[in-house]
Formats: sequence, C-alpha cells, structure tokens
Amino acid sequence: MSDIEEVLRGIVGPGHVLVDPDLRAAYETDWTRRFTGTARCVVRPRDTAEVAAVVRACAAAGVPITVQGGNTGLVGGGVPDRGEVLLSLTRLSDLEPVDELESQVTAGAGVTLEKLQAHARAAGLDVGVDLAARSAATVGGMVATNAGGIRVLRYGSMRDQLTGLEAVLADGTVLTRLAGLAKDNTGYDLTQLLAGSEGTLAVITRVRLRLVPLLPARAVALVAVDGTEGALALLAAARSRLATLSAAELCYADGIDLVRAHGRLSAPFAEDYPAYVLLECAAHSDPTDEILELLADCDAVQDATVAGDQVGRARLWAYRETHTEAISAAGVPVKLDVCVPLRELAGLVAELPGAVAAVAPGARGIVFGHVNEGNLHVNVLGAGEHAEEVTDAVLRLVAQRHGSISSEHGVGRAKVPWLELSRSEAELAALRRIKTAFDPDGILNPGVLLPVR
Amino acid sequence: MSDIEEVLRGIVGPGHVLVDPDLRAAYETDWTRRFTGTARCVVRPRDTAEVAAVVRACAAAGVPITVQGGNTGLVGGGVPDRGEVLLSLTRLSDLEPVDELESQVTAGAGVTLEKLQAHARAAGLDVGVDLAARSAATVGGMVATNAGGIRVLRYGSMRDQLTGLEAVLADGTVLTRLAGLAKDNTGYDLTQLLAGSEGTLAVITRVRLRLVPLLPARAVALVAVDGTEGALALLAAARSRLATLSAAELCYADGIDLVRAHGRLSAPFAEDYPAYVLLECAAHSDPTDEILELLADCDAVQDATVAGDQVGRARLWAYRETHTEAISAAGVPVKLDVCVPLRELAGLVAELPGAVAAVAPGARGIVFGHVNEGNLHVNVLGAGEHAEEVTDAVLRLVAQRHGSISSEHGVGRAKVPWLELSRSEAELAALRRIKTAFDPDGILNPGVLLPVR
Ligand SMILES: Cc1cc2nc3c(=O)[nH]c(=O)nc-3n(C[C@H](O)[C@H](O)[C@H](O)COP(=O)(O)OP(=O)(O)OC[C@H]3O[C@@H](n4cnc5c(N)ncnc54)[C@H](O)[C@@H]3O)c2cc1C
Ligand SMILES: Cc1cc2nc3c(=O)[nH]c(=O)nc-3n(C[C@H](O)[C@H](O)[C@H](O)COP(=O)(O)OP(=O)(O)OC[C@H]3O[C@@H](n4cnc5c(N)ncnc54)[C@H](O)[C@@H]3O)c2cc1C
Repeated sequence: MSDIEEVLRGIVGPGHVLVDPDLRAAYETDWTRRFTGTARCVVRPRDTAEVAAVVRACAAAGVPITVQGGNTGLVGGGVPDRGEVLLSLTRLSDLEPVDELESQVTAGAGVTLEKLQAHARAAGLDVGVDLAARSAATVGGMVATNAGGIRVLRYGSMRDQLTGLEAVLADGTVLTRLAGLAKDNTGYDLTQLLAGSEGTLAVITRVRLRLVPLLPARAVALVAVDGTEGALALLAAARSRLATLSAAELCYADGIDLVRAHGRLSAPFAEDYPAYVLLECAAHSDPTDEILELLADCDAVQDATVAGDQVGRARLWAYRETHTEAISAAGVPVKLDVCVPLRELAGLVAELPGAVAAVAPGARGIVFGHVNEGNLHVNVLGAGEHAEEVTDAVLRLVAQRHGSISSEHGVGRAKVPWLELSRSEAELAALRRIKTAFDPDGILNPGVLLPVR
Repeated sequence: MSDIEEVLRGIVGPGHVLVDPDLRAAYETDWTRRFTGTARCVVRPRDTAEVAAVVRACAAAGVPITVQGGNTGLVGGGVPDRGEVLLSLTRLSDLEPVDELESQVTAGAGVTLEKLQAHARAAGLDVGVDLAARSAATVGGMVATNAGGIRVLRYGSMRDQLTGLEAVLADGTVLTRLAGLAKDNTGYDLTQLLAGSEGTLAVITRVRLRLVPLLPARAVALVAVDGTEGALALLAAARSRLATLSAAELCYADGIDLVRAHGRLSAPFAEDYPAYVLLECAAHSDPTDEILELLADCDAVQDATVAGDQVGRARLWAYRETHTEAISAAGVPVKLDVCVPLRELAGLVAELPGAVAAVAPGARGIVFGHVNEGNLHVNVLGAGEHAEEVTDAVLRLVAQRHGSISSEHGVGRAKVPWLELSRSEAELAALRRIKTAFDPDGILNPGVLLPVR
C-alpha cells in the first residue's frame, strides 16, 4: 500500500492534510464530548473534484473514511473510530446567488446554516429549517442527518427543503442533480434517499434548497395547560385554526422551575401549572389577534400571555430555549431524542419517571420538545453509572408505544445498538442491501447507522 | 413448473384469478388506449397476506408480475407486456378511521382518491393531492407514481403527504411502517424510496397519509398577461404575497380558443391576450380582498376577473380544465408532461412550435400547465405518423434546458427510451443498483422505469 497521506497531499495540497495530533484534535471529538476517536489524518478538499479524488484514493487503498461537516451532530456519526481518514467538508463553502424566481439556492456542503440564512434574508427570503447549532452546522451535515428544529411544524425537516444535490459515491463517481425541479418523476429519488443517510451512502458536496418567505410579523403565546392532554387539545385547535402557526413547543413544571432558577427568570404566571405550550405565529401582517381569538375560545387554556414585540417574544421563548443550558448547568444529562404518535404522548410522559427510577434510583428526567411531532427531548440528570440502562429503559418504552428512538438526531454511532427497536428485521435487511448497493466495500462511515458486518 | 394459476387460486380463491380473455381485457389496456399487452392471468388478492403469498408464488415459479392499481396511469406502467401475472390491488380497499389528533389516515392501496377524499372531508379534513382521475386512481398507484395535480404548489406531491406505508418486497417479505411519525431519523427512508418507484421495487399494500385542513373559503382569478414572462412575474408576486395561494395554472391564447370553440364558452375578456394565469386561493375566511389587492398592484396584469362564489369559480376553472377534453375532441394528441426551471420556461414555450414543425409539418402544439413548477403539458395535434419524432424533439429541447422528461406521470414503459435525457450515466447505474438490491431476479414490473437487462 502506498502512503495514503502522500497521495492525499497530492490532491488537496500539503496544507490541507493534517496529521499532527494537535491539529486533528478538534475533529476527533464531538460537541457533546461523549464521542472521541483517532483519525489517521484529516483531509480538507476544497471542491467536488478534490472530494471525488480523495474518495477514489481511499477506496483504492482500502482505507475507510469518516465524513464530517460542522461536527455539531449529537450521535457521534461524524467522529472517527479507529484510524479512518477524516474527510472534512468545511472548505466547500461556495454559495450561489439566490434564485429569486424559483425561491431556491445552491450551496456548497460546507456552508453553515448561519451563512445561508444571512444570504437568503438579504434576498427577502429565509431558510425553512432553523436550529441552535446554526453557527457551525453545515448544510451538508443537515441534509445528511435530515435535521429538524423548531420550524418543522410549518416547513418540514431538511429533506422537505431539498430540491436536489450533488454527491460523490463510494467509488468516486459524482452524481449531480441541481436543476432544482419542483416536480420530477424520472425514477427513484436519489436526493431523498441520501437525505438522512448520515454519510454512509455518499459524500454530499452541494445541495439545492427551496427557500421560504421571510415573514416580518410574529407573535408568541405562552400558554399554561393542565398537562400533556391539555397541550394536545390546544395543539389541535391551533393547528386547525391558525394558518400562520410556525412553532408549538411543550415543557413541564419541573423544567420551568429549573430554567427559572438558572436564569433568575420571574414566574410566567401568578400560579404554577403542570405544563406549558409556547405557540408562535409568523405572517406578513400581525398575527396577534388570531392568537388571542384562539386562546379565548379554547377550553384547554388555563392562563396565557402573548407578546408581539421582539423583547417580549424573546422573554417568552427563553422559558423554552434555556432548557438545554439550565439542564447542562445542573449536571451531565443522558440526552435522548424520541418521538411517538400523539395518542401515545401523554402515556409516555406519565411512564417515564417510574421507568427511569427503576434503573437509576434518584435520577430525574426533564422532558421538553416539539409537541406537533410528538417529539420529546428526554434529559435524565443524576443517572450516574446507569446511563446505559436509562437509555435502554427509555428507548424500550418508546418502542412499545410505536415511536422512534431517534426523531431528529439520527442513529450515528450512539444508537446502533438500539436500532432494532425502531426497525424490523425486514427493514434492517433492506437498509443493508441499500448500503451494499452503494458502498460494497464499506468505505464510507463504517460503524455509523448500521453495525459493521 | 407447477401451474401458477392453480397455486394462485389456492391463495385468493378461484373467483379472483381471471384467465378468460374477456375478463382480463379491462386490465390489459390503459386509459389512453396507447398501451396494451397480454396478462397470463389477473389475480386479485384482498389483503396484504394474500399479496405476499402471490408474490412468493410468482417468485418461486420465476413468473414476472405487473402491478396495477386503478389503471389510470398515463405511461403504460401498469399494463402487462407479455404474459406477466397481473396483480390488481383494487380489493385492498380498507379505510381506517381518520386519526384526527394526527390529521392522518391509513388506507389500503386500492382505495380510490375519491373515496379517500369523502372520508377525510367527513372528518373536516382534506387530501393534499387532487387530480381529475380521482374516481379510479388508487392511493397505492398515486404513491407508486408520486402523483402531482393542481395543489402541488400548496401541499406538494404525493410523496409529501406520505408518513408511512406497508409494502411487499420481491421475495414476499412485508415491510410495515405505519406509525405515521412526523419525524423519524432511524436510517434510510424506505417510504420515500418507494414513492415514485412505479411498482419496480415493491408492491405497496397500505399507505399512511397526512391530511390537510378542509378550507371553506375560496376565490379564483383569471388573469390576462402578455406572455410567459408576464405569467412568471404574476406568479412571483402571488407567491410572495398570497399566503393562501393554492393553484397557479397557465394557458395560452390558442388553447383558450380551442376550449371556447369546444365548450361554446364566451370570451373571458373584451380583448384577446397572449396568455392567461388562473390563481386560486383557499382559506378559512374569504381571500377575495387579498387577491384583488395583489392584482391592483401587479404590473404584469393586463386584465383580470375574480370569482368568489362556486358557480363563478367553476366558470373560470373551465377555461383551464376543459383543455384536455377540447384537445381530445380535436384529434389524438401526442401527450407530453415535462418541466423546466422557471428561467427556462419562456424560452421553451417559444421554441416548441418550431421544433414540432421541423419534424411534423402541419402539426400544432397546445401547451398548458402548472406554472409554479415549470410544468407544461405539451399536447401535439396532427403529428400523424411522426409521433415518435415529435416526442423525441420535444424531450430533447426539455433536456437541453435542464428539465425533466416526466414531471408528473412517471417513466412507465413510455419513456424508458428517453430516460437518459433526464438521468446521467452515473444516476442510471445507481438506479440499477437499487433495483437489483430490491428485486434481484427482476420479478416486479420488468421493462417499467428501467430497460430489461
Ligand atoms: C446546540 C445544538 C443544537 C442542535 N439542535 C438541533 C435541532 O434542533 N434539530 C436537529 O435535528 N439537530 C440539532 N442539532 C444536531 C446537529 O446540529 C445536526 O445534526 C446537524 O445537522 C449536524 O450538522 P453538521 O454539519 O455539524 O454535521 P456533522 O456533525 O459534522 O455530521 C453529522 C452526520 O452527517 C454526516 N455528514 C456531515 N456532512 C456530510 C456530508 N457533506 N456528506 C455526507 N455526510 C455528511 C457525518 O458523517 C455524520 O454522520 C443540534 C446540535 C447542537 C450542538
Ligand atoms: C383524466 C386523468 C387525469 C390525470 N391527472 C393527473 C395529474 O393531474 N397529475 C398526475 O400526477 N397524474 C395524473 N394522471 C395520471 C394518474 O392518475 C396517476 O398516475 C395515478 O397516480 C395512477 O394511479 P392508479 O391507481 O390508476 O395506478 P395505475 O395506473 O394502476 O399504475 C400506475 C403505476 O403505478 C404502479 N402501481 C399501481 N399501484 C401500485 C401499488 N399498489 N404498488 C406498487 N406499484 C403500483 C403500476 O405498476 C404502474 O407502474 C391522470 C390520469 C387521468 C386518466
């Protein structure tokens, strides 16, 4: 075997093959610090041709590749395991002018969400997906993980924004599908297949995304309800009556207490309530009246406060958005990201404390999430050495209720052992056949999404 | 080889294996009468278990299968070629109660769109896709072809309605994914892969669909513009300002003339104009004012007429919807369904007459379509024996302009020879690898979508 680093230097230039452990370090550990491994080297191509050449060289040498974008993934999928070549896409940062006629844009895989948002907004448009990791998360990574976030209710996940992509297959072939056609029924949709494939089928080098109108008028309501069932009743009313609804977030009394203590926030209401729903509407003209009417009519509302101005909206969002921060300040949580059908949501929430206590006495779960999708972020504090058992117990409950063990974040390395809770034997066999069809030698992200055979 | 008909009778009962040519006939020719072939027999299972047993029996006997739903497809994909077993799904007509909490429903593959619409509307909801073949087209066929229609602008194509499905693979294995989770990132999305796969990867037996609000208030505008560029300018204004926009249809002076002569309709305006756009808005409360404001502000508008009541709306829709009928009455057209990026639309429309005349002197093309998606239905009358050359000429123009040779209808048998105009060699290789991964022996719909090897 010829020295792969030497070959890679020939492709990307010597300055973009990092072998020094200090230079590699930032790529080898993930955002959560739970996942860490060793890369043989880090290679940073600057365009599709270089990516293709890197992949071909690694394939020829039989050296596996770990694909990485912004390294903000939460399931360890972009972190090397043992001696892979780490292929970093961050230099693929070309951004084409916004196509205003189509409301679309083509971006290099390494463009961050934040850059893309600024670019779209300068043209009076916006990106349909938003998430807190926006300054580092790349559009390639977001497509590879089919990222979600707070706007899924209105615009769907990352796959729903996609109108095309360019990708390098495991043999170095380049697939290009960037015309951005809104309707195209000429065979299997490879773009959709690669969305959510977590770097195991191809390296995404460019993406074409549909943009949404930039909506200037917003209103936010924080609504107190008597529990999960009340939250669902409010959601149903909001969904059928508020055409401008763009977020519906759920949290509970214990989370609000933690958030208030952490951020020294005042109580949202004179009394305490079991659960809270944050609704946001966005439109061309002020949606406040629409929200007020709904709140006046809906029996599930125990109390509510509405804000139309930016400061007031931020104050209400803080009750929901500081959850992550407040939980991290309280300890190192076991973080799970699950969803269940809505009819199972109240049951799951009720069962969680007992299930956690049974395997990790003294631990406590803080739950919040995107209620419209039945998507809960389950954060368990104080699990100590029982992290694995807690994960297992929670994911089993979710599976019993026909849910998904990974609603947003993907399988990565973290959830491979539990994948069979969400996918049947027949489905797993189909996934493996697809993997083999695209990457017969297992060069791309081995051990991610599917177990190494 | 044992007698396959005998085995099939054992599975579905003797009354549901049709061998008599008279009984087979309705299944052997398509709606357009362009495609016809011979089936060895027609088999009509009533549930998933019977479908799986039929597929297993055919696989064991090495007998290929043609999959058929409502037989309204326009590209010959559901019609047998030479002696396949024709697997008809129309008896899979179970319809579960509407899940109002999720705004979803699960339906057997054989349920017609019309039945599904009535079912959804009884629960105050609606189906996101609508098309004229609604009384016969089945939800299974609509998923298999990723059907479009007039509401794509607002709700997307059939794949965008799908939250899950059940399907029988070529070896008889049943994949079931019907929990209807709004977000689920546990590996490759098999549901999306099967959408648009035209029966070549699996037999879809049940589908789970997201429903949309039933909107009681509608308004329609017929707008005269000075040509394709004017239509695009109006579209851009409508798209950015009308949150309730649900259809934007384009037609031209020659089509309107034909429609008027055929239906004895009065002229929509005092003067004639080169092109016309029909806009429809749908909302909870009357959208007429919103439309009127837009029309007053938009320079592209030459003249316009707006209707809010049902009779007036139907009168305006007739100018667009009678195109198909009026064209058929004038002769047997070559029917093509293409789309291009919007920036190419005006150029394509301008080029079409010359390209058609060059290969079929005296022929004339009538063009209309869904302007938001750059989707044109090109109907060429008087092509005579030059149908194939006309098809070739038009599809080549479309490909030069980075378009799709099949926007809505799929590849079927009709477009296999032109598939390479829309898909690169690398893509075709990927499609073939997927086909082989799912159906290694080529049992399902041989000759559809991909050439038989
Ligand atoms: C503070 C914070 C908040 C977050 N909020 C959300 C949220 O609300 N919703 C949500 O869904 N996620 C959220 N995430 C998770 C994360 O931001 C997303 O998964 C994001 O899509 C990852 O993008 P990335 O560029 O960082 O990818 P990476 O972390 O680098 O990689 C993620 C996966 O994609 C693969 N990959 C990356 N780039 C490519 C490529 N170009 N081609 C092929 N494969 C590739 C990797 O191999 C890996 O498997 C959050 C993360 C953080 C840290
Ligand atoms: C008057 C008219 C108007 C139309 N308007 C539109 C329109 O606006 N937009 C549009 O997109 N189409 C339109 N069509 C085309 C047609 O209605 C759609 O393609 C429809 O989705 C076909 O459904 P079907 O049940 O009739 O399928 P079929 O015609 O029976 O089959 C179509 C294809 O799907 C496969 N298939 C069918 N059922 C299954 C299954 N259960 N599992 C796997 N594969 C299956 C078949 O093998 C075949 O390849 C129109 C057709 C007509 C006749």
